[in-house]
Amino acid sequence: MSRTLWIDAAGRLFTWDQTLLPFRSQALELRSCADCAEAIGTMRVRGAPLIGAVGAYGLALALREDPSDGALERARDTLLATRPTAVNLRWALDRVAGRARALAPAGRAAAAWAEAAAICDEDVACNRAIGEHAADLFAPLRKGSAPLQVLTHCNAGRIATVDHGTALAAVYALVSRGVPVHVWVDETRPRNQGASLTAWELRERSVPHTVIADNASALLMMRRQVDVVVVGCDRVAANGDVANKIGTYPTALAARDNHLPFYVACPTSTVDPRTPGGDAIVIEERSAREVTHVRGRDGRGEVVEVQITPDGTPALNPAFDITPARLVTGLITERGRVDASPSGIRGLLAAALSPPVPAG
Amino acid sequence: MSRTLWIDAAGRLFTWDQTLLPFRSQALELRSCADCAEAIGTMRVRGAPLIGAVGAYGLALALREDPSDGALERARDTLLATRPTAVNLRWALDRVAGRARALAPAGRAAAAWAEAAAICDEDVACNRAIGEHAADLFAPLRKGSAPLQVLTHCNAGRIATVDHGTALAAVYALVSRGVPVHVWVDETRPRNQGASLTAWELRERSVPHTVIADNASALLMMRRQVDVVVVGCDRVAANGDVANKIGTYPTALAARDNHLPFYVACPTSTVDPRTPGGDAIVIEERSAREVTHVRGRDGRGEVVEVQITPDGTPALNPAFDITPARLVTGLITERGRVDASPSGIRGLLAAALSPPVPAG
Repeated sequence: MSRTLWIDAAGRLFTWDQTLLPFRSQALELRSCADCAEAIGTMRVRGAPLIGAVGAYGLALALREDPSDGALERARDTLLATRPTAVNLRWALDRVAGRARALAPAGRAAAAWAEAAAICDEDVACNRAIGEHAADLFAPLRKGSAPLQVLTHCNAGRIATVDHGTALAAVYALVSRGVPVHVWVDETRPRNQGASLTAWELRERSVPHTVIADNASALLMMRRQVDVVVVGCDRVAANGDVANKIGTYPTALAARDNHLPFYVACPTSTVDPRTPGGDAIVIEERSAREVTHVRGRDGRGEVVEVQITPDGTPALNPAFDITPARLVTGLITERGRVDASPSGIRGLLAAALSPPVPAG
Repeated sequence: MSRTLWIDAAGRLFTWDQTLLPFRSQALELRSCADCAEAIGTMRVRGAPLIGAVGAYGLALALREDPSDGALERARDTLLATRPTAVNLRWALDRVAGRARALAPAGRAAAAWAEAAAICDEDVACNRAIGEHAADLFAPLRKGSAPLQVLTHCNAGRIATVDHGTALAAVYALVSRGVPVHVWVDETRPRNQGASLTAWELRERSVPHTVIADNASALLMMRRQVDVVVVGCDRVAANGDVANKIGTYPTALAARDNHLPFYVACPTSTVDPRTPGGDAIVIEERSAREVTHVRGRDGRGEVVEVQITPDGTPALNPAFDITPARLVTGLITERGRVDASPSGIRGLLAAALSPPVPAG
């Protein structure tokens, strides 16, 4: 099955349990609103677009059990509380709830299910367009007949979305065009989403790749072993500053120092015109334990956590950083490349009122 | 006992078994040349200055058992083969062997032991001078009454040398002057020497510190939570380029982007005038397993390795990188601060022919 969120022949909803990756690929059936809330809250599903889609289906499943006004609002609140900072989740829930509220209870469950399906289809189409636009930009960067060397950070891939991914959509589009690609995968400390999730999904699609410590990316750029850097993002400010996984900013600095293009792949929905610049973005600090402990599979085949610091060592764990717009070569959206600048952002948001430009 | 390599009242030689750190502090007696060779080869001792000192004592211990010419050369070759790329090891062995060869066999063991002790004393004096010069430079960088915020990468500390360390000598000198200091400790993937060794030795000396993922250092610099960056180094080229632990170069880029001083603490012996620039330095590639697996203590208290990547995922593991001289604010040597430039290096090497300048 290609999508990260899919419906089988019997109409049942499934996703992958990402807490078991990369060591076990196990499908997880989502049978109820409670199942969906649990999957989001425990990070069995992660990645803003995927969380939004699972939330949308969660609301539809709640309405199958009880389509009353009260049940609708309770389900919405329950789902929203699972990851209150994910902008996509609120957006998806508002969209499904708005559709349902406009109908009499009897018709709500079916309409909500259709709306959730539409959200998924739109995510897939948006990401495919990002991939095609990115492939147009990246293919000419290949050096002779060597594979194009793409470096990425964290996981902005298929399993962070319904399909294709954002940053990795570029890789999948290039592969489907027959362009040889090799991906340098930053392991992405402290949670190692690169080493686990990106490596897993590239391996599953047989895309050549190599994992590196985040520390090594700058040296590879200096040695000309990288042609282009592409990352996803959590939020783009009105001035073009980009909030993304911790470690994105130093990666952008290394690209700049070595005159390499640094692109940010993002749906237009990631742009927040109410955030004037990066310094207005509050950076989430996560548990110190994510730094002091590492999860992996031990010699007996069990997935465990090991402590790498002395007992009692304090650690700080900011979850993302700000890449100043001046370091961003361009934003790649479903509408094509735009400058990471106030005028680029304004133009993008104006264009978003009309249908997207086909890529190609 | 303060030194990392010490002799007890009974004349026995000891060091810490660093493979047990940070979870167990266990002294290791070095009773023979074979013990010393094993300790270096298995990295129970590491850090170029410490390896040199242990090698020197190893040769002295060999001469106690057999002071003949043949035994001398065999012991030298055995010790040199343990870490053939460590410049300090060769230098220390040549120095002790040269002293011994000039004497009749009967006097060799005592002379070699005295030479090893002199090497240790010189290392301590050199590092103390580096620390004092660094403290002179760093103390004025403190913001008001807040602790001076020092960021370091890897372990260039007390346990990489006989005492004081190189980069951390600055911290210890500031502390002994009563200057409040807080150290941001890069964990230093893939071997985590920061999270394990630097955190251990700062904790042992009660120096306030916080471990961070390497990815987080650039954000802290952007947020003005760092006043100065100081690292050790493996080799300085004639043009001032610096080879050091992987991740040093992006750290220097972040310092430059945020107008923060980036210093390299290094004994003059680290400067290699025969290496014209960084691009002439061959970068050691270590085992991919250091990237795909992480060592730590599991929930049952056992130190184990866990795998963080999918089975069969390829990884690349360059062990150090090159920081261009243009990013280095200065080299801090036992003779004081010098520019990381051809003229700075020439001046340093010329001055090395005369006694060091007292710091203070």
